[in-house]
Amino acid sequence: MTRTVGVLGGLGPDATLDFFAKVLRASRAEREQDHLRLLIDNNPQVPDRNAALTGRGASPGPALAGMARGLEAAGADFLVMVCNTAHAYQADIEAAVRVPFVSLIDETVHATLRAVPGARAVGLLATTTCLDAGLYQRAFAPHGVRMIEPDAAGRARFMEVLYRIKAGDTGAAVRADMRALGLALADAGADALVAGCTEVPLVLGAADVPVPLISSTDVLVERTVQYARGLAPLPTRSTEVPS
Amino acid sequence: MTRTVGVLGGLGPDATLDFFAKVLRASRAEREQDHLRLLIDNNPQVPDRNAALTGRGASPGPALAGMARGLEAAGADFLVMVCNTAHAYQADIEAAVRVPFVSLIDETVHATLRAVPGARAVGLLATTTCLDAGLYQRAFAPHGVRMIEPDAAGRARFMEVLYRIKAGDTGAAVRADMRALGLALADAGADALVAGCTEVPLVLGAADVPVPLISSTDVLVERTVQYARGLAPLPTRSTEVPS
Repeated sequence: MTRTVGVLGGLGPDATLDFFAKVLRASRAEREQDHLRLLIDNNPQVPDRNAALTGRGASPGPALAGMARGLEAAGADFLVMVCNTAHAYQADIEAAVRVPFVSLIDETVHATLRAVPGARAVGLLATTTCLDAGLYQRAFAPHGVRMIEPDAAGRARFMEVLYRIKAGDTGAAVRADMRALGLALADAGADALVAGCTEVPLVLGAADVPVPLISSTDVLVERTVQYARGLAPLPTRSTEVPS
Repeated sequence: MTRTVGVLGGLGPDATLDFFAKVLRASRAEREQDHLRLLIDNNPQVPDRNAALTGRGASPGPALAGMARGLEAAGADFLVMVCNTAHAYQADIEAAVRVPFVSLIDETVHATLRAVPGARAVGLLATTTCLDAGLYQRAFAPHGVRMIEPDAAGRARFMEVLYRIKAGDTGAAVRADMRALGLALADAGADALVAGCTEVPLVLGAADVPVPLISSTDVLVERTVQYARGLAPLPTRSTEVPS
């Protein structure tokens, strides 16, 4: 049994391409027909999540709901979204479709707890908007894990670096800046780091930081392949993830 | 004005990933929201085109028609297909939807005539099925261009190399084999070579052969961006391409 994956993407496009490439690698098959079917809506024209959540732009909710409906209509059996921040609009997406939506946030939290069982403090590399929306904080809290977040200067630096990546710059300077942001969180006592933004793995690898780095993209890739292959039961509509 | 691109893909997935990456590169924008919207149906489960056209498998026509309908329903303004051989089923696709279908074959023929204006003989690296279906031969004939095709041994070798690429092998041996196939066509008098299979550019570049190499993938990328940006009028339903 295989399930067709619906991908809300384009937020940004490079992160979606990265996800697509990694799903192909993770589901490599000898025979072309044994590969997974992915329906990808690469829609960079969704209003900016960071602008919207800070009151400087239109809500991306309706656009995301429309994409979800289109993917369901085209045959998706479940949905994933390659963007952490946009999970602030998960309710809009779930209200629009009947198929399950796999939360990147919940999956990453569970993967972190599995990878670093004793973790008490987790550093979070994410957009200011994602941090302020409390997406990871709320998901980690029931497990007694506290978050270590960048300070005000670190937040501003993260957003600056993020928009450089989104503009196509993944050069040495951008990599050094992202690494410095990760190291600061490790210095502040983080037992693990979550790359809680799908642009982060484009410029930061596990070897760049002294504590385990959990890439939300890699987690979503691994779980997407498992769900698509029928190797894990899909989460119910309450966004719960089977542990 | 931008148009949403519907992509019939997964035939195979690596060629679709290659197309997606090249479209992103070709339409690079400073602001994420200025990128193009692509709806990609990466469906490797479409029955094997080569098996079908040689009577050894089910027709992919109904699956391709269903993908086209889904992409149209999800919002595609026009369709492209990242597979030369599957263009043998273009009529099934066009019968299923109202939006224009951009023919990779027609676009590649026009691009070849533009790139090598005096070409009298064009070498064709394509699947046996694509060769036998006469897709390129019929499109080139009105322009007085004759095709140079691999001989029987070359055809067999091409198919063997193709399935190695589809299984993920893009190593040195595969590259050398594809290069030898291209050189043989140039030796036989080809003024230009058409990489008439979207797996070919994964292992063969312009620098590998002594005559101009026209990549059908690159042509489709360039034209897709032009159509999506409204810089070229879309072909009418007769599959004609404006020259």
